[in-house]
Amino acid sequence: MPHITLPDELPGIRGPMAFRPETSKPLNQLAEILLRSENSLTRGERELIATYVSYLNDCFYCQNAHGALAQHYLGWDTDQIDAMKKDLQSAPISEKMKALLSIAGSVQKGGKHVTTEQVQEAKAAGATDTEIHDAVLIAAAFCMFNRYVDGLATGAPQDRTFYLQRAKARAEEGYANYNPYH
Amino acid sequence: MPHITLPDELPGIRGPMAFRPETSKPLNQLAEILLRSENSLTRGERELIATYVSYLNDCFYCQNAHGALAQHYLGWDTDQIDAMKKDLQSAPISEKMKALLSIAGSVQKGGKHVTTEQVQEAKAAGATDTEIHDAVLIAAAFCMFNRYVDGLATGAPQDRTFYLQRAKARAEEGYANYNPYH
Repeated sequence: MPHITLPDELPGIRGPMAFRPETSKPLNQLAEILLRSENSLTRGERELIATYVSYLNDCFYCQNAHGALAQHYLGWDTDQIDAMKKDLQSAPISEKMKALLSIAGSVQKGGKHVTTEQVQEAKAAGATDTEIHDAVLIAAAFCMFNRYVDGLATGAPQDRTFYLQRAKARAEEGYANYNPYH
Repeated sequence: MPHITLPDELPGIRGPMAFRPETSKPLNQLAEILLRSENSLTRGERELIATYVSYLNDCFYCQNAHGALAQHYLGWDTDQIDAMKKDLQSAPISEKMKALLSIAGSVQKGGKHVTTEQVQEAKAAGATDTEIHDAVLIAAAFCMFNRYVDGLATGAPQDRTFYLQRAKARAEEGYANYNPYH
């Protein structure tokens, strides 16, 4: 049961977003720019960073909501998402993405965990300054979103197909005009 | 030295905000609503939550920038800020604020660290659902801001009077129209 009274028993972040639309707006604008706006990283790659950090933070709702979106964009199955979480090196992604996910994993522990060597590795694999910036900020933002969702003890459907069924519609809907009641 | 090339050697979050104005905008809108907009928690109380979480995350820039703002609003000296960081119970703040800061401290560790007992204690001390929501989201947001600042290895003036000297102007300026070059 959530720590505070949230509207209509909405799952995950949708409850607090419906509860406080004033803060929901910039949160969704941030997600829209980071995860969907024009970028040299694909939407699928950026959702993978969100998924990986949410997994490290053990946030069931976020890792499944964003994992389902990553699956949708990348054409992956759930087993591939789960394998990526456990072993970045064996995932069918570029060396650049492995390096950016490694940086994201360090950000999850704390900003100072990111090393010069990790950044050099990302740059050697072709990552631009903007891609490194965005990987750090996506990882940092999900350290916020995950804490928001779990810090209020929101509920989450345990059946993972719930998230997969919604992914296509959520990909079309985007974040900017996010409606927590949909 | 920052991990990526940031404009004009601006300190702390100002470098990445100048580097990527697209993400800077919702980040500052979020800060404006959480820390300055009309609220039953005072601006000083909300800056205290930001300061405490930034201290727990060991983010020098954020804990001093927001600590100086808390001092400005509350009329505290730096010793009082430092004493609060080390011992919430002895700080000259309400029982409600002690309970909200305790929740914020749990959010810093991870969302699931917040306990029903902590929330009950906050409610018993008079905290509303919105105040609990905002304390959780301020704490979560600073887990993002701190990782953003340190994950990119931005520089920060080590002289703490730098932050105190800027606090009054920053309090007047607010976050919504934040100019990283000022």
